Amino acid sequence: MISKRPFAKWLGDTNEVTRIFLAAGEIPDMINLAGGLPEPSVWPADIIADMAYKAVLENTEEALAYSPIEGLPRLRDVIAERYNNNETKLTRDNVLVTTGGMQALDLLGKIMLDEGGLIAGQFPTYLGALDAWRPRKPSYRPMHLEGNKKFDAHAALEGAKFGYIVPNFSNPSGFLVPLETRKSFVDAAHATGTLLIEDDPYGTLYLDGPPLPRLLDLSAKRQIGPYDGPIVYLGTLSKMLVPGLRIGWVIGAPDVITALTLAKQGSDICTSGLCQKIAQEAFSQGLIEDILAPTLSIYKTRRDVLCDAMEANLSELFQWTKPQGGMFVWAQAIDPRIDTNLLLHTAMDCGVCVSPSSAFDPSGANKNSIRINFTLNEPDKLNVGIKRLATATRRLLAES
Amino acid sequence: MISKRPFAKWLGDTNEVTRIFLAAGEIPDMINLAGGLPEPSVWPADIIADMAYKAVLENTEEALAYSPIEGLPRLRDVIAERYNNNETKLTRDNVLVTTGGMQALDLLGKIMLDEGGLIAGQFPTYLGALDAWRPRKPSYRPMHLEGNKKFDAHAALEGAKFGYIVPNFSNPSGFLVPLETRKSFVDAAHATGTLLIEDDPYGTLYLDGPPLPRLLDLSAKRQIGPYDGPIVYLGTLSKMLVPGLRIGWVIGAPDVITALTLAKQGSDICTSGLCQKIAQEAFSQGLIEDILAPTLSIYKTRRDVLCDAMEANLSELFQWTKPQGGMFVWAQAIDPRIDTNLLLHTAMDCGVCVSPSSAFDPSGANKNSIRINFTLNEPDKLNVGIKRLATATRRLLAES
Repeated sequence: MISKRPFAKWLGDTNEVTRIFLAAGEIPDMINLAGGLPEPSVWPADIIADMAYKAVLENTEEALAYSPIEGLPRLRDVIAERYNNNETKLTRDNVLVTTGGMQALDLLGKIMLDEGGLIAGQFPTYLGALDAWRPRKPSYRPMHLEGNKKFDAHAALEGAKFGYIVPNFSNPSGFLVPLETRKSFVDAAHATGTLLIEDDPYGTLYLDGPPLPRLLDLSAKRQIGPYDGPIVYLGTLSKMLVPGLRIGWVIGAPDVITALTLAKQGSDICTSGLCQKIAQEAFSQGLIEDILAPTLSIYKTRRDVLCDAMEANLSELFQWTKPQGGMFVWAQAIDPRIDTNLLLHTAMDCGVCVSPSSAFDPSGANKNSIRINFTLNEPDKLNVGIKRLATATRRLLAES
Repeated sequence: MISKRPFAKWLGDTNEVTRIFLAAGEIPDMINLAGGLPEPSVWPADIIADMAYKAVLENTEEALAYSPIEGLPRLRDVIAERYNNNETKLTRDNVLVTTGGMQALDLLGKIMLDEGGLIAGQFPTYLGALDAWRPRKPSYRPMHLEGNKKFDAHAALEGAKFGYIVPNFSNPSGFLVPLETRKSFVDAAHATGTLLIEDDPYGTLYLDGPPLPRLLDLSAKRQIGPYDGPIVYLGTLSKMLVPGLRIGWVIGAPDVITALTLAKQGSDICTSGLCQKIAQEAFSQGLIEDILAPTLSIYKTRRDVLCDAMEANLSELFQWTKPQGGMFVWAQAIDPRIDTNLLLHTAMDCGVCVSPSSAFDPSGANKNSIRINFTLNEPDKLNVGIKRLATATRRLLAES
């Protein structure tokens, strides 16, 4: 960005892809396959409206006063209960409520990173995590989890300030981290003591089969009593209910939660009590479960439509693996001349927007892939969007 | 805090006063004069409940989807209109919606401070600002605005990354920055180009007379067209309506708003749409104005009760100036043996909680004053609280 002011140095480095996505939403006839937006038609507005009304009228102080920094005690209990099972023992001391999942990433950077700290990050990496940590100028040790080679999690985590992975349908790659790799990560986190962030916005979005165990659960198995291990699990309502409440949560060892609480004190004091009360009711009344089946049904159809359209239109231009869940297909250009930063602009000229891979690389160097979202658009639009993308790709190749 | 983890270095430095306040709220019979909490009885819960209901049901996407990072366009317009007048010209490009006033401080630190940056800060300094900026390890040039000497604002701002003042009833000192000093700050900000943060949570809480002009207005006078000057004005709903919606706003030059938007993208993506819609309605329907008169009437009574009780019980132990508004009385111990960090603990043993001055000093060295809140407690409690404080102070003196 251009300005006469002496802004902090990291601002010179920031990506503007997220802003391009959001602006793309306002261009008429633009088909936005770039963002990670959920489908709004399944939102139970009438029920949430009632919950909001009752929260303010019947629990006025909880809804409208400052909350405890850590979150409303009853909401923390409800979240702990949600993840409790025979082996995973959580109490409210394991839970921090955050202002969306993004705040959890920001707070983790705040408590773990002095300037230049080393992060072992799954590659490609969620661009929001890169945004959150950029002001602390970290260095990255990229973890490539895909492919046939056994991944050495111990070497990856050793000496890092923390590790970061999205085991369920990674953003952007849609990759589902296999059970054996999960186990080796948990082994490595326990052996090295390095905190390992398990970012799990898409954990409810399994489209083809039963969920794999969480790293949190694999880690909790190893101990007796309330959780005190190295996994820091991040959840959010944004993909399982609605994003506009800005409710996320961290589950971790109590000393990590305490440090995050000190960081949150200086970030926004507390999350909206009103939004927390709605979240508490949504969990308690089973609202998440009620909307899951219709959501998955829509997403599965759209994933299939998108992949069929890609097969029909893009198979000579890109290669990809059909994801088993989540929100995205990650497609790699076959022709090495394709620079997906340039493709973004050509695609927008053709009326479709996708995310270029540079946004998911700490160095910005990876320019051969794109992320395509399948959750937001109806089948017709997915079909048209993919045709436009094929046209744009061919146009870019013809020009190069 | 004590932990086996390799946390970032600043965590070793953080104050725990805010956590002590909040915990004090849960001790039976404790009279909490420490916090900065508003009186909840004036909150129009029924009206806010209706607004919440309608926001979700009638504006579902705005309330429940992701908002633009900068905030909902209509809310930004309403905020701009609120501050517009003949001389101050604002558009939505001058406005960023934040997750409470605290987030504005955090974001300003993020965009302005590389590690160790210099802040020219009004002394004593709001502890939340110290909390927000602590992770960036800034240095402070303290600005002492009280007393008879003419303050040299130019020398204070020159070379600083930014200046920070709370002109209306400063937290903690309750000091009202006089018009001449305001003018000299605006002159100095224009002359040096240094951004000057005008933090104004208490600007509606004038108890004795008409408000002085904002620095924003004094600065806007100097130019034609939409605001592009060096004042960065911070507002919040927390003290003029309710804190639990976590709605604040920044007004500033468009390039500052753009930089803050990039910072907010990596902090929480956006503020809750539901809370923003309620704020927009509250402004549009005049709800702020409706509850102002009853709020001021309660606060004026309580301020007078508190100061009378102090006069009757503390006049040999402390000296203070009766504030003309805001939420706090700042009292300086007459006996230099009194360490108010120790007094906090003795006072809590006696059933009353106040804020020690060390929390408002970047170095923590100032230990001779206390901040006393008058807005949260009813007159009887204020009287008992001050008697307990007198007992505690005498006990501490007897022990020293």
